[in-house]
Amino acid sequence: MRIERTQWDPAQNALEESLFHTANGYLGVRACPEEGAPKGVPSIRGAYINAFYDVKPIRYGEKLYGFPETQQGIVNLTDVQNVRLCLEDEAFEPLKAGTVLAYRRTLDMERGIVTRYIRWRSKKGKEIEVTVQRMASLSQRELFIMQYTVKSLNFSGRVRLISREEGDVTNFADPNDPRVAGEALQHLKVEEVCALDNGGLIRSSTLASGLQLAVAAGYAPPAGFSLEIETQPAALEARMEGSLSQGQSITLVKRCVFADSRRHPDPAQAARSILKEAAARPVSYYEALQKKQLDAFWQRSRLTVKGDEALQSSLDFSLYSLYCSAGRDAVSSLAAKGLSGEGYEGHYFWDTEIYVFPFFLMTDPALARSLLDYRHTILPAAREHARIMGHSNGALYAWRTIAGSECSGYFPSGSAQYHLSGDIAHAFLQYYYATNDLNYMAEKGGEVLVETARLFLNAGHWHEGSFRIGAVTGPDEYSCIVDNNFYTNAGAQETMRGAAMITRKLMEAGLADQLLAATNVTLEELEAFDRAADAMYLPYDETLGIHAQDDGFLKLAKLDLSAIPKENFPLLLHYHPLWLYRHQVCKQADTVLAHFLYEDLADEEVMRRSYDYYERCTTHDSSLSACVFAIMAARLGDMDKAMDYFRHSATLDLDDAHGNTKDGIHTANMGGTWLGMVSGFGGLRVKTDGLHLHPQLPNGWESYSFPLRWRESQLRVHVTGSGCRVEVQSGGEISLWVYGKPVQVSPGQVVEVALPKG
Amino acid sequence: MRIERTQWDPAQNALEESLFHTANGYLGVRACPEEGAPKGVPSIRGAYINAFYDVKPIRYGEKLYGFPETQQGIVNLTDVQNVRLCLEDEAFEPLKAGTVLAYRRTLDMERGIVTRYIRWRSKKGKEIEVTVQRMASLSQRELFIMQYTVKSLNFSGRVRLISREEGDVTNFADPNDPRVAGEALQHLKVEEVCALDNGGLIRSSTLASGLQLAVAAGYAPPAGFSLEIETQPAALEARMEGSLSQGQSITLVKRCVFADSRRHPDPAQAARSILKEAAARPVSYYEALQKKQLDAFWQRSRLTVKGDEALQSSLDFSLYSLYCSAGRDAVSSLAAKGLSGEGYEGHYFWDTEIYVFPFFLMTDPALARSLLDYRHTILPAAREHARIMGHSNGALYAWRTIAGSECSGYFPSGSAQYHLSGDIAHAFLQYYYATNDLNYMAEKGGEVLVETARLFLNAGHWHEGSFRIGAVTGPDEYSCIVDNNFYTNAGAQETMRGAAMITRKLMEAGLADQLLAATNVTLEELEAFDRAADAMYLPYDETLGIHAQDDGFLKLAKLDLSAIPKENFPLLLHYHPLWLYRHQVCKQADTVLAHFLYEDLADEEVMRRSYDYYERCTTHDSSLSACVFAIMAARLGDMDKAMDYFRHSATLDLDDAHGNTKDGIHTANMGGTWLGMVSGFGGLRVKTDGLHLHPQLPNGWESYSFPLRWRESQLRVHVTGSGCRVEVQSGGEISLWVYGKPVQVSPGQVVEVALPKG
Repeated sequence: MRIERTQWDPAQNALEESLFHTANGYLGVRACPEEGAPKGVPSIRGAYINAFYDVKPIRYGEKLYGFPETQQGIVNLTDVQNVRLCLEDEAFEPLKAGTVLAYRRTLDMERGIVTRYIRWRSKKGKEIEVTVQRMASLSQRELFIMQYTVKSLNFSGRVRLISREEGDVTNFADPNDPRVAGEALQHLKVEEVCALDNGGLIRSSTLASGLQLAVAAGYAPPAGFSLEIETQPAALEARMEGSLSQGQSITLVKRCVFADSRRHPDPAQAARSILKEAAARPVSYYEALQKKQLDAFWQRSRLTVKGDEALQSSLDFSLYSLYCSAGRDAVSSLAAKGLSGEGYEGHYFWDTEIYVFPFFLMTDPALARSLLDYRHTILPAAREHARIMGHSNGALYAWRTIAGSECSGYFPSGSAQYHLSGDIAHAFLQYYYATNDLNYMAEKGGEVLVETARLFLNAGHWHEGSFRIGAVTGPDEYSCIVDNNFYTNAGAQETMRGAAMITRKLMEAGLADQLLAATNVTLEELEAFDRAADAMYLPYDETLGIHAQDDGFLKLAKLDLSAIPKENFPLLLHYHPLWLYRHQVCKQADTVLAHFLYEDLADEEVMRRSYDYYERCTTHDSSLSACVFAIMAARLGDMDKAMDYFRHSATLDLDDAHGNTKDGIHTANMGGTWLGMVSGFGGLRVKTDGLHLHPQLPNGWESYSFPLRWRESQLRVHVTGSGCRVEVQSGGEISLWVYGKPVQVSPGQVVEVALPKG
Repeated sequence: MRIERTQWDPAQNALEESLFHTANGYLGVRACPEEGAPKGVPSIRGAYINAFYDVKPIRYGEKLYGFPETQQGIVNLTDVQNVRLCLEDEAFEPLKAGTVLAYRRTLDMERGIVTRYIRWRSKKGKEIEVTVQRMASLSQRELFIMQYTVKSLNFSGRVRLISREEGDVTNFADPNDPRVAGEALQHLKVEEVCALDNGGLIRSSTLASGLQLAVAAGYAPPAGFSLEIETQPAALEARMEGSLSQGQSITLVKRCVFADSRRHPDPAQAARSILKEAAARPVSYYEALQKKQLDAFWQRSRLTVKGDEALQSSLDFSLYSLYCSAGRDAVSSLAAKGLSGEGYEGHYFWDTEIYVFPFFLMTDPALARSLLDYRHTILPAAREHARIMGHSNGALYAWRTIAGSECSGYFPSGSAQYHLSGDIAHAFLQYYYATNDLNYMAEKGGEVLVETARLFLNAGHWHEGSFRIGAVTGPDEYSCIVDNNFYTNAGAQETMRGAAMITRKLMEAGLADQLLAATNVTLEELEAFDRAADAMYLPYDETLGIHAQDDGFLKLAKLDLSAIPKENFPLLLHYHPLWLYRHQVCKQADTVLAHFLYEDLADEEVMRRSYDYYERCTTHDSSLSACVFAIMAARLGDMDKAMDYFRHSATLDLDDAHGNTKDGIHTANMGGTWLGMVSGFGGLRVKTDGLHLHPQLPNGWESYSFPLRWRESQLRVHVTGSGCRVEVQSGGEISLWVYGKPVQVSPGQVVEVALPKG
């Protein structure tokens, strides 16, 4: 279970920095060259703590009422990646001088370790091997360990190692790409640099948000090497010197601890104490814990395919990356780029709930619940956002945010995406259906459901007997500010129904006190939710026999996508938004996604026509698109097309298909890969009446299998050409629907269900 | 013919600075206190040259493709308004110290002179009268003359006058009001300060646009006073000293010349030479020319009302202000605030063509043509803008601009207002109908018409047999990015028809060579224009029997405007745009304006229902609204309502009804006042078949009359309760339509037409 690159290509450096980053849900460190990247070699040097942000102003050409004045952005942390190696008078600078004889970059997904290996000959002929191992500890989230090993092949002499912790850092910017920050800004100010035993500590604070960061580093130099620590105004430098003989290996171990004030009342104190504990333990201690935690992860999560080795790696990479990206506390979630880069500025989007949440829900409900906790944490900010947007009650979640307030500088494809509030409600409801955890609904879920339902009731209006929602933007950002977006309305319908249902359940169970205290929700309000949900307007075109993406879409100018030059994709980088809005063109699945999430709203023929129609309009310029088309192609029985989309999704980052993985991995797409397999080929749906499976085998595969968590039970589903086997590996008996038929499976039992004919 | 204020109220200072500014179409100087405004007294110290701009970056929270990166903004010029007066040891500072005993501010619209008169008693009891007269010369546009007179009432002693030309100036900013600039920036850099005979010259350049400005000042100090000129790094200071005895008057004459590089190859040389000439002449020379020019202006322009003295002043003020605001060369037009302030940054909008142009067209066709020349000048920029917006041909005029490129930082109510290109085409066509000037069409008009017609043909598409235009914004900025805005589509229809018609006429007359060379327009294209125009989709609601503002408007949530607190108007300053877009609420006339401009598209009953429907939705938050409702109320026979709206329009700035006249006068509304009278009460329309009048007398008036220019003839229309008299004062016989009937009037003849019964 590993990802490996052996091609030495400095032009790919920034891409590899993303792919081989190390992260643990709290901390992420890009795989930047320890010796630094010379000019001309693309590099985005960075390390991040999930939800550790600064605040900066948003500027507008014309600022209208309610436009957010500031936004949060993830902060590039104190840089601990620097290690410079000198062999006598020659520096190890493989990107700049000498000759690289062999190169290997490895991500070991069973051990949770990233390795950079270089065999190098200096200008003067010294040959060495440098192997750097990195680990972001899964058992001690603040801990990042680097092991820097040098082996001499033909050289004996003095060796110096200079390692730095650099406090003077800025964030990356590209003013011409709306997907990364527009202005390079310094966010971190060094407050104090002090020496510790065999190391030191840099204490910093963010300039505007007032958060604190402490980074402690502890050195175990190679045996026989001297160690000298120097504190500088904004850096810590460790200088080590000693001898190396031909054939000998030496290893520097550097333990770094990142503690922030969002999790620690005294970050400096926490960093010292965690470092002290870590320094007292061998690296192998953390490696063993890492392995154990990953064993359990793979046990409950791994998708296995027989007959497609290459794809297996992509699947592993996707799930591993998600596991390393997901926040595990109530202040953090899972960012669009995880912890692998600064793209989208570390913001959380709907990506989490719609694309990634199902994977955790069905494999690690506790982690899934933690993602929901985050949404409950920021509910007050969502209420405030709703007021700014003109709603007298309810909660409108910010389209992109870290701490809760709206961080979008362009509301037509930002705050206007009201569907996010429906997506969040959908996740809470899915959690309830999958876990039956009514206590969580009493504590947090009900409140989020009632507040989002209120938002939709307030945002919509009655017209000719139907309930409508004007002026919103659906998932497809190539149509903005539209009336009655089908996807949004369907989500609003589910939200209002779900809020009423959960509230009534809590009342019946005598568990509604907390919800009532928090929301003052009344029975009249529940009835109003139901009335609006029942009368929800879902635009349908009689002539085409499909649901319209919105009231206007099907009357817009058509666009022949095949006539657009390839280099003009993604269209958003080559066409003014107004031109896009004027055409029947979709950045990504919108109505097609609605047919996946809310499949009972349309019969199969409508879904099929809809799929065909919208597929012709869709550029898949968003990385969130392909997986949805994969799922729906499988749903409609076109397994070859499903496989094409699925493959595109599964390999998107490893192939750098969108050309911007340098800014970070595409976590939503990775969740989409899981969905493509489990909800696509496996036909998984979680509905009010329980768990549904409809497993089909794509052409070319021998079989595949996936584990699932359902209520208290651990399942495994194995799929072959003739049908599937469902096994309950632990927990109690479960009932589910397979191929539309009810099936019971007892613990230890394996039930085979044959694929229905036709 | 004067506007006068006698109330001493420092809180009104900025407002009076706008109302009593002096301008001549090229230069405008706000009426700022010569002695400076102390802290706490609102003041926007400014002087401007029409179309003299600098360039500054536009910043975006998220920048998408095609968003303009820079914008032009009018530049606050070298400040020549400073005169400080010292009586022995006491400074004349009426806004700060002493007692104001009498105060009078006067705009004399016959002489073109503004006067500030203050009788003041110093703390120590010195009583004086200070009278400052200002004139922006209409005969020598670069020339601004100040006469500063001091009369002592009870004091004898030494008097010092210190007058400065200050080169270190910035523009005004308010980050929270989208209607003025968001960031205070310095735009002018002093290059050179040098002394001249009895004066000096400051040469500056703009920081980014590279334009040059030379400001020369020449002093004629009071008799017996010394004069000392000091050049400073960024200023020129003239110090004068002498004696004043009780009862004596002294006068300082300051002649200032503003020459810019948009009009002068060597501005400094031009400023010197104009100043030299002006200094050699007595002020009375320019005063006489000023009077002569204004006599002619009033002769051809003045609206007269019998029985409403107060309103007469407002009418005079409106027309006078327009005359002083209109650019008279091909690089300038008429800005939203004229030359009276920095609101809307000196940009030109559709205001010019739709609201102001008709006044000049019907009274001063040469000036009207000059406004059209400006649009022809910036046609290349409009072509480029169309490319940026995704159109492979045609010209899309920038929503707000000075030199032609788009300066709007928020495209949904900026570039999306495609109707501007139709408005411009409309003005060219109106010019042609009123003047029959085919040569101008051959030279400039045809090219603008063909390029704007191409834009609409390219922007629209065919759907179910009709030609439609998606994703534009109509005049009503409370609904943005809509499909098939009735107003826009009606304008597109006229533009395409007009382009085809004018091109064919030019071909028939053998005058098409220049047009063909410039545009390569083909007969096939003309046919395509006609086909699209004939099939233009004009949304109509069968149930309501009205034209829909756009495809979605009538299905949006309704809004009870009476339930909104008064302090929440204008809504744009209190509600997020998305909330506004979600409701049936209009900032201003949109469909109702279409019914005025394109009245043959709907019968009277449709217009009446439409008027009633949209009136209920309209907040009139735009100053462009009331006059249109006035016109249409008159058209539909509700003269009392027409009068209410008309009065609101006519007195908007003098009453500061929108609370922002401090940022400048509302020129479009002033044009709307003329329209309200002449097109509203007078029923004037210019159509393909000629001049139409339908004069009605509002209740309470004895009579009113207005002059008109039609082809080569000068007309006067006099309206009473029983009908109207039409007189041809000069030129040849004309044919027109009065009350729908054809009428011929010969030179010298007065034709009476009775108001039809019912």
